[in-house]
Amino acid sequence: MPIAADILEALRLELRRGTLILAVLGTLRAEQYGYSLKTRLAEAGVDIDEGALYPMLRRLETQGLLVSEWREEGKRQKRFYRLSADGARALEQLTAEWRAMNAALNSILPKTNTEGGRP
Amino acid sequence: MPIAADILEALRLELRRGTLILAVLGTLRAEQYGYSLKTRLAEAGVDIDEGALYPMLRRLETQGLLVSEWREEGKRQKRFYRLSADGARALEQLTAEWRAMNAALNSILPKTNTEGGRP
Repeated sequence: MPIAADILEALRLELRRGTLILAVLGTLRAEQYGYSLKTRLAEAGVDIDEGALYPMLRRLETQGLLVSEWREEGKRQKRFYRLSADGARALEQLTAEWRAMNAALNSILPKTNTEGGRP
Repeated sequence: MPIAADILEALRLELRRGTLILAVLGTLRAEQYGYSLKTRLAEAGVDIDEGALYPMLRRLETQGLLVSEWREEGKRQKRFYRLSADGARALEQLTAEWRAMNAALNSILPKTNTEGGRP
């Protein structure tokens, strides 16, 4: 019996969830509005739909990690987000945590043949 | 007002949770019992307490990713775990997901000066 697709999908989401926040915080070192943030993330290879992105932004702002303000740009009101001072400290600590886990996983997981030279 | 410690801790846990499963699956390519698994993980730099590890093992077995059997070793009955065939496929796909996210995060996050040469 093959593993149920929903189990694998749940594990993938669990693996993505924490890193998505890190990607969002890292991108918001420079101010972005929702759509430009989504575009920056996609350029880096992180796909997130708006139904997940906007609740995450609201949550991170409520937690004090982001600040936002409404401003007009291109004749439209847009909400611009950027990292707060607390968010910058959180980003620093989470980045350290992520690097530590990567070092651990690199020692545990099988090497791939397709990895090639690191950029 | 500094960021509440519990918010940062929740983000850290969220970041760790998915990778812990990956670390466990990766380690169980070779059979281990609970304590030897915990030791292997610690050697790789992954600290997980037994109160989190054992429920995770039960969950992964229920999901069909692990198989286990009781055997005597050193005059004690121990439950040995290893990756199932489905678990091996899940590990492969999750590893690919993790590598893709790492590539994205490496392009997003600030470079550290302390990173030095990669091993």
